[in-house]
Amino acid sequence: MKLLRHGPAGAERPGLVWTDGTLRDLSGVVPDIAGEVLTDEGLARLRDLDGTSLPVVAEGTRLGPCVAGTTKFVCIGLNYSDHAAETGAQVPPEPIIFMKANSAICGPNDPIIIPRGSVKTDWEVELAIIIGKKAKYVSEAEAFDHVAGYAVANDVSERSFQAERSGQWTKGKSCDNFGQLGPWLVTRDEVADPQNLPLWLSVNGEKMQNGTTGTMVYGVAYLVSYLSQFMTLHPGDVISTGTPPGVGLGMKPPRFLKPGDVVELGVEGLGQQRQEVVADA
Amino acid sequence: MKLLRHGPAGAERPGLVWTDGTLRDLSGVVPDIAGEVLTDEGLARLRDLDGTSLPVVAEGTRLGPCVAGTTKFVCIGLNYSDHAAETGAQVPPEPIIFMKANSAICGPNDPIIIPRGSVKTDWEVELAIIIGKKAKYVSEAEAFDHVAGYAVANDVSERSFQAERSGQWTKGKSCDNFGQLGPWLVTRDEVADPQNLPLWLSVNGEKMQNGTTGTMVYGVAYLVSYLSQFMTLHPGDVISTGTPPGVGLGMKPPRFLKPGDVVELGVEGLGQQRQEVVADA
Repeated sequence: MKLLRHGPAGAERPGLVWTDGTLRDLSGVVPDIAGEVLTDEGLARLRDLDGTSLPVVAEGTRLGPCVAGTTKFVCIGLNYSDHAAETGAQVPPEPIIFMKANSAICGPNDPIIIPRGSVKTDWEVELAIIIGKKAKYVSEAEAFDHVAGYAVANDVSERSFQAERSGQWTKGKSCDNFGQLGPWLVTRDEVADPQNLPLWLSVNGEKMQNGTTGTMVYGVAYLVSYLSQFMTLHPGDVISTGTPPGVGLGMKPPRFLKPGDVVELGVEGLGQQRQEVVADA
Repeated sequence: MKLLRHGPAGAERPGLVWTDGTLRDLSGVVPDIAGEVLTDEGLARLRDLDGTSLPVVAEGTRLGPCVAGTTKFVCIGLNYSDHAAETGAQVPPEPIIFMKANSAICGPNDPIIIPRGSVKTDWEVELAIIIGKKAKYVSEAEAFDHVAGYAVANDVSERSFQAERSGQWTKGKSCDNFGQLGPWLVTRDEVADPQNLPLWLSVNGEKMQNGTTGTMVYGVAYLVSYLSQFMTLHPGDVISTGTPPGVGLGMKPPRFLKPGDVVELGVEGLGQQRQEVVADA
């Protein structure tokens, strides 16, 4: 099942992709793609629906972030061994955790906004985990029971804010529209193996990232278990699992986004995103 | 005006401290201490109320975090020059920003829960700023227009998670019940000078921290303006402004919390907190 949110920013309604490929509105069925809806029971109720009875979402309708009620957007740093190498960093002995501000989260095709003063706005295609059930001190074996599904994320990053403006990466990770999420949440039953998903990103049609989640250092089950040792994960929380090689920072010479660029990215089976790059007003 | 939230965790109702010292329930007036209620207009409407007409909150009722709808809990690191010195760090050339998970936020008198595996759970009394109006690219001169008020915060920190478990402080800052906030939000009109507030913290009656916001490196107006260059601040967002000297990590030898300890802390004019320290189940 592919769940989504459609409509203007801040006023999105729930929806799904029906088997005929049409987007269907769920606002008569559930209040949002959030909370209890993300549990196994909540998802089972949606699976029982006859999609043909649901209103069709008009073509061209904006998609919002595919999940609501996110209390935290946790990211994992340097989680692909080859990406660590390109940035000159060692693979960490434990997962590196950092946080993006929730206010950075936006729809999959919303623009990348280059913040004022930015000189190094960069891209990062990632596999995002969406939590479906509260997780605290869960084992790796139990971890998948707490996952509602997966989505594509762009962990947009300003490298000078991140690394050259007094420590802690949050500063370069939290700008508005630095967290495109979607197009949809693909429930975990439809993802046979989250550690075997090709993922890619292009800028102006030129392929920049082309990797696979098979080269993650710390996999999905490990990360859910690990994070749950430090903080309770709640339904709707997002874990973005790190990026494969090919970010602008790693190029020789480094290459960063400029207004007018078009970024496209995707994860196999999870859909695609397309963003225009604009300067902040 | 002193605004608060009372009742069981997750089901708090809005309230205020009336001039006779009684706590009064606001749930017939506003849905919560959040969003539009925090704007100048929203606060003005509450100021017009006759508190004697509001129901009295029963004595002994739990207080929750004094604000709801928090999209982010941003903290400032090493923001008192004498605290930086005690931890062996330099005063940073720009504010250090890090994020606590929103799931760490709890009521002012809720226990400090020592997470499993913790050996270095520490305290930090702080002045917290509560945002009242959306702030993006605001100047220092405009900053106070975006502040609803202030509260006491305990930025509880696990030093080994923070510094010895693969980079980025978030890991040691985001555990459940690591962010006591309250007892109340004191509106900014009642705080003549936020840079002249004594603040203190004791453990088992022994004074550990005893400072003043007068020794902050980066003050309230600067921080609101600075942060708004990197991310949009929304009503209900919390900025915790750093801690004065006297944390356990800075002692010789270092001293950390253990089950049974009692932590009390306060900021002049903003009230006090009291927490029992417990081990996680």
